[in-house]
Amino acid sequence: MTTPYQPPVEDYAFLYGQAFGLDLLERSTGGALTAGDATDVLAAAGDFAASVLAPLEELGDRQGAQLVDGDVRMPAGFAEAYRAFVEAGWVTAEAPESAGGDGLPAAVRAGLGEIWNASNAAFALCWLLTAGQIHALDAAASDALRETYLTKLVSGQWTGTMNLTEPEAGTDLGAIRTIATPNDDGTWSISGQKIFITWGDHDVAENIVHLVLARTPGAPEGAKGLSLFVAPRILVNEDGSLGGRNAVTTVAIEHKLGIHGSPTCVLAYEGATGYLVGEVGGGLAGMFVMMNSARTGMGFQATGIADRAYQRAAAYAAGRLQGPVLDRPAGTTIAEHPDVRRLLLSMSSDIFAMRAMGVYVGDLFDRAETDGTGTLAEFFVPILKGWATEDAVQITSDAIQVHGGMGFIEETGAAQHYRDSRIMPIYEGTTAIQSNDLVGRKVIRDRGRTAEQLFTLIDETSAALVASGDAVAQRVGERMQRAVSAARRATASLLAVSSQRDAFAVSVPYLMLLGTLAGGWMHALATVAVLSNGGDAARLTAADFYTAHHLPRVHGLAETVAAGEIV
Amino acid sequence: MTTPYQPPVEDYAFLYGQAFGLDLLERSTGGALTAGDATDVLAAAGDFAASVLAPLEELGDRQGAQLVDGDVRMPAGFAEAYRAFVEAGWVTAEAPESAGGDGLPAAVRAGLGEIWNASNAAFALCWLLTAGQIHALDAAASDALRETYLTKLVSGQWTGTMNLTEPEAGTDLGAIRTIATPNDDGTWSISGQKIFITWGDHDVAENIVHLVLARTPGAPEGAKGLSLFVAPRILVNEDGSLGGRNAVTTVAIEHKLGIHGSPTCVLAYEGATGYLVGEVGGGLAGMFVMMNSARTGMGFQATGIADRAYQRAAAYAAGRLQGPVLDRPAGTTIAEHPDVRRLLLSMSSDIFAMRAMGVYVGDLFDRAETDGTGTLAEFFVPILKGWATEDAVQITSDAIQVHGGMGFIEETGAAQHYRDSRIMPIYEGTTAIQSNDLVGRKVIRDRGRTAEQLFTLIDETSAALVASGDAVAQRVGERMQRAVSAARRATASLLAVSSQRDAFAVSVPYLMLLGTLAGGWMHALATVAVLSNGGDAARLTAADFYTAHHLPRVHGLAETVAAGEIV
Repeated sequence: MTTPYQPPVEDYAFLYGQAFGLDLLERSTGGALTAGDATDVLAAAGDFAASVLAPLEELGDRQGAQLVDGDVRMPAGFAEAYRAFVEAGWVTAEAPESAGGDGLPAAVRAGLGEIWNASNAAFALCWLLTAGQIHALDAAASDALRETYLTKLVSGQWTGTMNLTEPEAGTDLGAIRTIATPNDDGTWSISGQKIFITWGDHDVAENIVHLVLARTPGAPEGAKGLSLFVAPRILVNEDGSLGGRNAVTTVAIEHKLGIHGSPTCVLAYEGATGYLVGEVGGGLAGMFVMMNSARTGMGFQATGIADRAYQRAAAYAAGRLQGPVLDRPAGTTIAEHPDVRRLLLSMSSDIFAMRAMGVYVGDLFDRAETDGTGTLAEFFVPILKGWATEDAVQITSDAIQVHGGMGFIEETGAAQHYRDSRIMPIYEGTTAIQSNDLVGRKVIRDRGRTAEQLFTLIDETSAALVASGDAVAQRVGERMQRAVSAARRATASLLAVSSQRDAFAVSVPYLMLLGTLAGGWMHALATVAVLSNGGDAARLTAADFYTAHHLPRVHGLAETVAAGEIV
Repeated sequence: MTTPYQPPVEDYAFLYGQAFGLDLLERSTGGALTAGDATDVLAAAGDFAASVLAPLEELGDRQGAQLVDGDVRMPAGFAEAYRAFVEAGWVTAEAPESAGGDGLPAAVRAGLGEIWNASNAAFALCWLLTAGQIHALDAAASDALRETYLTKLVSGQWTGTMNLTEPEAGTDLGAIRTIATPNDDGTWSISGQKIFITWGDHDVAENIVHLVLARTPGAPEGAKGLSLFVAPRILVNEDGSLGGRNAVTTVAIEHKLGIHGSPTCVLAYEGATGYLVGEVGGGLAGMFVMMNSARTGMGFQATGIADRAYQRAAAYAAGRLQGPVLDRPAGTTIAEHPDVRRLLLSMSSDIFAMRAMGVYVGDLFDRAETDGTGTLAEFFVPILKGWATEDAVQITSDAIQVHGGMGFIEETGAAQHYRDSRIMPIYEGTTAIQSNDLVGRKVIRDRGRTAEQLFTLIDETSAALVASGDAVAQRVGERMQRAVSAARRATASLLAVSSQRDAFAVSVPYLMLLGTLAGGWMHALATVAVLSNGGDAARLTAADFYTAHHLPRVHGLAETVAAGEIV
């Protein structure tokens, strides 16, 4: 059952132009781009996604990527779709200007990220990883590497991967055992096994550039001893033409719960030729550039998968007749059953919060250099990644529930989102990794200053709502005020812990508290905007619902945070 | 990766003999059975489940049931396992004495239900549905039907199914269109299509007895016009021997997200011979007997699937080394990482609450006739079904999270539980159906009297904890006292609603509130028992954890309930 994908262009127009009280793009680009321009970009992307990517999503799931005689064969249509994606200019559009791309602002890339992932998350992962590598090479690669590799990634001719994980080195990168030894000609020889390599092999582009974390001879133990290398699938001649295969082979692809259209590879490096990126021992720093990009990208993926699941559920409910609906005329569909309506509003109001947060965080990054918003942007990365991916999994589960028994049948399509989504709270750093980053580096290290900066911003919005005179806005504002109190109590508890274990044992509840709170703030801001400028009254209903059904969780979470580790 | 199944016999020994302050079995059976006897039964069942059923679980998922030339072929080994299950006497053991079974008390059947479902949920569904039919026929069938059909179900020679759902009649049974017309010989002729028929066809027993809801000629519209019929897969001759095939065919089996080892059939009745059970028009009443049994059974299934997922995660975490663990010596496994420990305690403390509630509700049913506990038992049915199945899905998700990236790989086995579990909040009445039953029939109809009876019981336990002088017990008691206040506020909100929509729009949050609260009470009772009699100190840690991480959700849920429908 294929439900056409509806790109959320109207929501983005509202977010770019009104929700935050001004034209975000105009401000961040100094007038070079407007909200209207950004919306036009998303409308075009939405058309492409709905017509080219969405139709391949279920097929990608059913066929999956296959390993045939050592090479990965992608599902039918993926290669053509990738060529169309490149030819339409979407790769170059998102790449930074410094690397030869069009340099679309991060606030716009938030919308693009959602749209690619909503229409076909397995396909979108290829670009998500390539984009991360572009940022990493742009930050650290030599001119020669930029010329040979970065230009080809930015043009979309080649794709990129991220090679961190090994069988005994997942979260603990310090345990990486892959070795790179120097050759006489300045290149390096890489040997080792990497696992969980997304789009590690495929047949949609002519070459694949692997970005590999490896250990050099005599390097110190742990993460400090890691360096970063580029190792192409096919070697590149001096003149830029393609030569023979590099000594890296695809040993296996994983049989996964979801995202079957994305090949997850085990790669064996057996003396593969590699090129050092940056300095020896600078691997982790280089990789972090890529990881930050990938983590923010996960927030957009979460929004995308969640919205696609929601759209499917909403379409099913709007078309399904089943029994009389309480206080509604005969012929009313199940969408108006009180509990189905609850589920749909729960999903859509949470998705709006994610979407708005993606734009907000993108804008913070866009203004980091001019307005000093970088610290707050960094504060939000683990929140967006952790909270949005956890909530997205729940939303895909709710989408199944709306379908009733049909949701459990694969043909409906709802189950795919539930399967696909489950990897999100794991890859690019589990929720625990995000929450330890948040609590350790971003709350405890600065003694809660950035957190308090956020709370103060929320206070201002809440006060405006309480003073607004509108009944819905008032109760939204009051709920936000009580929620911020809970967040301040939780932050104080964290700052007062006597052992780091007490903090890390409740860091996920703390992250979920801040994510839920910040989601409420997005609704609060939208409410202020609608009250000021007029607009869709449904946005007030969404704010009312979110702050009655999602936001109150903060009260329980604050108690949990205060408890510390239970021993 | 096969993790051996460990039956939770010790927990049941504690629940039967100590947790509730006395020997539950001795009380309910008047001394005919003791907690020790019941524990022995579970130990034997556990051995059988671990050695015969658990080894088929992953194979059942991979092979799945297949439709071949109109007949369902079960995965390899299922037929042999079913014969062994029958020969070991487990079918007869659970059947009521009035139907020729051994009549094990419901409190013991709770443990058996968990064990069968933990070891192999797809397999267990066959018996779960058969057991429901045994109860329905025992309540309403004529002597002739009892002789021909009930005896064969109780002996395990034949299995039973439950035929309610049709393409346009899911939750709304009143829309059923299957027709039964009387034949001259007193039999009926059934025509129509039934969908989602669990174990609707298979090759593990020689015959299948379908219990079918159908409409008779001239019957009133809606649910009142439904009657209940027995229709065997293979017709039965006068002498009890098997004759030819009945006119019921398996048109298709569903391609499902999970429980692949359980065939979910589309059955076409084309003038199939049926036999009336009970009175014309009494179909729904008869089916409710079966549904109540199936709903309670779902609570046990939830506990079982959740516990198997937990066991797998705990075993993985206890064997996995990955990086240094905060404040722990080198060589400590990830099980001691603060967040992995949080996840494992979250799962295990919730599973204990479900398990205890299953025994508690079983005991209430066991004492319904002697001690008047029937109303409270009925009150708990939707709570156990709704809350335990929703939480079980989350637990299977947590089990994936503990595995990290490996959790997303099907070979690990964690993904299967996540897929299998997702049907539980849907079948046998969705969570919304449970919550409307709870709120409409069991709270609003009696003006909250039964709810208040429960709260008063909880008050007593909380007071005992607060007065205990033990620091952990005191804080558990205080948390329970605040939670009961939230529950009383939520109940008062429900009783004060001005429209039924305001109640039904928050009935799921209310159900989850009561389930979470009652789960806390189970821990509170266990804490009292451990303080009085000594015992495993880990039970205090579990109570402390549950009331710090799960119980505080009631505060947010109470706010949500008070909000009513958001319009």
